Amino acid sequence: MKEKLAQLKKILAEVSDLHSATALLEWDQQTYMPPGGVSARGNQMGTLSSLGHARFVSEEVGSLLEELKSFRESLDPESDDACLIEVTQRDYQKQTKVPSDYVADFTRITVMAHGAWEEARQNDDFPHFQPHLEKIVEMRRQYADFFAPFEHVYDPLLDDFEPGMKTAEVQKIFADIRPKQVELIEAISEKPQVDDSFLHLKYDGGKQWKFGEAVITKYGYDWNRGRQDKAAHPFTTNFGVGDVRITTRVDENFLNTALFGTLHEAGHAIYEQGVSPDLERTPLGGGASLAIHESQSRMYENLLGRSYDFWVHFYPSLQDTFKTQLGNVDLETFYKGVNKVEPSLIRVEADEATYNLHVMLRMELEIELMEGTLQVADLPTAWNDRMDDYLGVIPPNDADGVLQDVHWAGGVLGYFPTYSLGNLVSNQLWEKIKQDIPGLSGQIQSGDFSELLSWLHENVHQHGSKFKPQVLVKRIVGEEINPEPYLKYLNEKFGAIYQL
Amino acid sequence: MKEKLAQLKKILAEVSDLHSATALLEWDQQTYMPPGGVSARGNQMGTLSSLGHARFVSEEVGSLLEELKSFRESLDPESDDACLIEVTQRDYQKQTKVPSDYVADFTRITVMAHGAWEEARQNDDFPHFQPHLEKIVEMRRQYADFFAPFEHVYDPLLDDFEPGMKTAEVQKIFADIRPKQVELIEAISEKPQVDDSFLHLKYDGGKQWKFGEAVITKYGYDWNRGRQDKAAHPFTTNFGVGDVRITTRVDENFLNTALFGTLHEAGHAIYEQGVSPDLERTPLGGGASLAIHESQSRMYENLLGRSYDFWVHFYPSLQDTFKTQLGNVDLETFYKGVNKVEPSLIRVEADEATYNLHVMLRMELEIELMEGTLQVADLPTAWNDRMDDYLGVIPPNDADGVLQDVHWAGGVLGYFPTYSLGNLVSNQLWEKIKQDIPGLSGQIQSGDFSELLSWLHENVHQHGSKFKPQVLVKRIVGEEINPEPYLKYLNEKFGAIYQL
Repeated sequence: MKEKLAQLKKILAEVSDLHSATALLEWDQQTYMPPGGVSARGNQMGTLSSLGHARFVSEEVGSLLEELKSFRESLDPESDDACLIEVTQRDYQKQTKVPSDYVADFTRITVMAHGAWEEARQNDDFPHFQPHLEKIVEMRRQYADFFAPFEHVYDPLLDDFEPGMKTAEVQKIFADIRPKQVELIEAISEKPQVDDSFLHLKYDGGKQWKFGEAVITKYGYDWNRGRQDKAAHPFTTNFGVGDVRITTRVDENFLNTALFGTLHEAGHAIYEQGVSPDLERTPLGGGASLAIHESQSRMYENLLGRSYDFWVHFYPSLQDTFKTQLGNVDLETFYKGVNKVEPSLIRVEADEATYNLHVMLRMELEIELMEGTLQVADLPTAWNDRMDDYLGVIPPNDADGVLQDVHWAGGVLGYFPTYSLGNLVSNQLWEKIKQDIPGLSGQIQSGDFSELLSWLHENVHQHGSKFKPQVLVKRIVGEEINPEPYLKYLNEKFGAIYQL
Repeated sequence: MKEKLAQLKKILAEVSDLHSATALLEWDQQTYMPPGGVSARGNQMGTLSSLGHARFVSEEVGSLLEELKSFRESLDPESDDACLIEVTQRDYQKQTKVPSDYVADFTRITVMAHGAWEEARQNDDFPHFQPHLEKIVEMRRQYADFFAPFEHVYDPLLDDFEPGMKTAEVQKIFADIRPKQVELIEAISEKPQVDDSFLHLKYDGGKQWKFGEAVITKYGYDWNRGRQDKAAHPFTTNFGVGDVRITTRVDENFLNTALFGTLHEAGHAIYEQGVSPDLERTPLGGGASLAIHESQSRMYENLLGRSYDFWVHFYPSLQDTFKTQLGNVDLETFYKGVNKVEPSLIRVEADEATYNLHVMLRMELEIELMEGTLQVADLPTAWNDRMDDYLGVIPPNDADGVLQDVHWAGGVLGYFPTYSLGNLVSNQLWEKIKQDIPGLSGQIQSGDFSELLSWLHENVHQHGSKFKPQVLVKRIVGEEINPEPYLKYLNEKFGAIYQL
C-alpha cells in the first residue's frame, strides 16, 4: 500500500507542477507580459490546464484511490496521508465529471476574456466585454450541469471555492446580516462624518511601496520566499511554499490603495508560506478554502491594519515618511480617517461596514445570471440599480461599476461570497486569539506580530487544505461559521468612532 | 492526409505550449524568482520538459510521420508543410533515443546546478559548483551514448544547436582562423593603444537603460511584442512570435555592458519576432540554428553597433545624455574606444578581434571533458593555463574565469562554437547585404534600419527553422559557412583603427 500511495503522490506532484506552471503563466500575464503575448498565452494555459486535468482524472488515479480506500481507514483520520487520500478522492469525483476539452476551452476563453475586459475597463466599453461574458456564463451553466442534479445551479460553482458549502446556507447568513449592516450604515450616516481628506493628497508611489513592504516584513512575510510586483488587480499566487508572491497597485492620490492592498495580499501570502512543506506538490498544499483565505487577508488588512493598536506602532514612521501630508494629522484623526464609513463605488476600497453589501450584490447578480433570470446585456443596468438600492450610489460609468472586478473576466463565478464569509471567520478567529494571547494588544502596539503568527501557523496555516472550511473553523473555535462576532466587532468599532 | 497533418500539428502545438511554459519558468528563474523558489522550480521544469518530451516521442507521432512520408514527397520541398514534416522527422529520430526520465532528471539537475553556480560565482567558490558540473558532464556523456555510434562524442551535443554540423568541421574552421586572429592581435599589440578610459566613468544605470531601449526601438524591436528585464546573464527567450523578451545587465562603471548587451539580445529578438506567424506552435517557430541566431545578434551588436556609421547617428544623443562623461570626447575617439582591442578576461565583453579565442578555449575544454582527458576538478587550472596561452591574461579568481558563463550550469555543452560560427555567418551575410542595399551606409548614418530589417526578414527571419543552417547560408550567399569575409572584415576594420 505504501507503494500505491507513493505512486499516487508521484502523479499528484506532476499535476501540482502543471498547476504551478499555469499559475506562473497567469502571474506573468497580469504583471509583465506584453500585449502581443495574449493569444499564445491562452493556448499555453489551455494546454497545461487540460494536461493537468487529464493526468488527474486518469483511470490510474481512479484505481489507486479505490485501492487506497481501506488503507485510509487504517490511518489516523487527521494524518497527512488520510487527508490526502480523502481530499484527492473528493477532487477526483468532481473533476472526472468535467471533460478535459471543456477545461482547455474554458481556459482559452477566459484568457481572451481577460484581455477584452482590460480593454473594456480602460475604455469604459462594456459591449466590448459582453460577448466574452456571455460565453463564460453559458460555459459555467454547462459546468454546473456536469454536477446535476443539484439543489441550486450555483452550488457547483460555490463548492469549487468553499468545499461543502451550499448556496442556501450562504443566502441564509447574508439575509441575517444585511439588515443589521444596513442599520449600522444608516446610524453612521446620521452622525458627523470623519475627516479623511489627508488620505487624498499626493503621495509618492515609491515611498508608499516601501512603507507597505516594511509593514509586511514586520508581519512576518518572508521575502526570501516571495516578492511584490504591480498588477492592475492585486492578487497572491504561489508556485510552492518557497515562492509565494503578492501584487499590489499604487494610486499616488490615495494612500489607502497600495497600503491596504499590500496588507491584504500579505495575509494571503503568509498563510501560503505557512503551509507545512510536507504538503507541497499535493492537493493539500494550499489554503483550506477561499473563505479561510480571506479570513487571513482581512485579518491582516483590517483587524490589524485598520486597528488603533497597529497605528500606535506604525503611525510615527508613516508620518515621518510623509511629513508634508501628515505632519499635522494626529494619530486619532488618522485612525478615524482610514476607518471612514461611506458608501462608495469600488469594492476593494470599501470600508468594513459597507464591504459586505458590495459582495452580496455580486452574488445575487451571479445567481440571476446562472438562473437565466438576468441577461448579460442587462447586467450594467442591474448593477447600477442595485448599487443605488444597497448603497445609495450610482456608478458614473461601467469602468467604476460592473467592469471593476477581474473575477468574471477570469471565468470566476461563485467566488465573491467567500469574501464576506472570510470577514465573518476572521472575527470568530480573532475572539479566540484574544483569549489565547492576553498580551496581544500590547504586542501589536509595539510592532510584535510573532505570537499572533505562531498561533495562526499552529491553528490555521500549517494544515493547508487538510480540513474542510467548516471543519477547520469548528476545530478552532468550537462552532461553524457564525456572523455574530463580526457584527459585534462592527458595532463596537464604529460605535466608538462615530459615537453611536 | 490533410487530417493526419492536422493531427500532427495539434500534438506539436501542445508540445510547443509545454516548451513555452518551460521557457517562462526559466525566464522567471533568471529575472524575478525569489531564492526560495529554486527547488520547486526544478521539479516544475523537470515535469514539463518530461511531459513535452513524452508527448513528442509518442507512438502516435511516429506513425503519423510514417504515414505522412509519401505525402511530403508530393509537396513543394520548400513549403511550410514539407519542411515541418522533415524537421519533425529529424527531431523525432533524435528524441526517441532519449528516455523521458533522462529528460526530467537532467532538467532538475541543471536547475539545481544553476542555483549552485550563482552562489559559486558570487563567492568565487568553484568547489561548490564542481559536483554539479561533474554530474552534468557525466549525464552529457550518457546523452551522447544514446546516439552511438558517432564520429566524435561531441557531435551529438553540437548537433542539438547546429543541426548537421560535425565537430571535425568546426575544428577545421577554427584551426584555420586561430593563427590569423592571433597574428592580428599581435600586430595590434605593437601599436599605440587607443583610449577608452571615458567608457569606465560613472554612468547612471537608468539613463543607460533608456538609451539602449531607444536604439533598439530604431532597430525595429517591437515593444508591443516584447520587453526588457535585468538578468545576471543576458539572454533572449520567446513564448510565441507575439512575446519575445530580452534581458540585459547594467554596470554603472562601464558603458559597454548594458548597451552592447541590449543590442546583442535585440538581434536575437528581432529574428524571433520576424519568424512567420504561420510557423507558430510548430518546431519551425524559432531560429534556424544558434550560429544563424548569433549571426543576427552579432550583426546588431557589432556590424551595426560598433560601426562608425552607427555612431554618426547615435553619438550626438549619447553625448547629450552623458554630457559630463562624453562632452569632450569626439566621435572618432569614441568610435575607437568602443573598438579597443585588448586581451581580457570576460568573453561577453571581449572585443571583436579576441572574441573567438574565448570561444575556442571553451570548446576545447568541453571536448576534453567529454573525452575524459580533463577532469572537472582540474578545470580551473586548465582554464587559467589556456587563458594565459591564448590571450596572455590569467584570471585573478574563478568568478572572472571558469565560472563566468552560465552555459555549463544550465547543462549546455556544445553551444559555444556557435558564437564564433555566428560571427563568420554575420560577415558573409553582411557582404551580400552591402551588395543588395547600396545605400546602406547612408541609411545607418541617418538611423534608418528599415531596409536592412526588410532584407533580413525576407532572407533569414521569416523562414524560422525551415532550413538547416548550412542550407540557409548557401541559399542566401551561394556558399556554406566560410571564414574569409570575417577575417577580411577584422583586418580592414582594425587595420584602419590601429593603422596597421
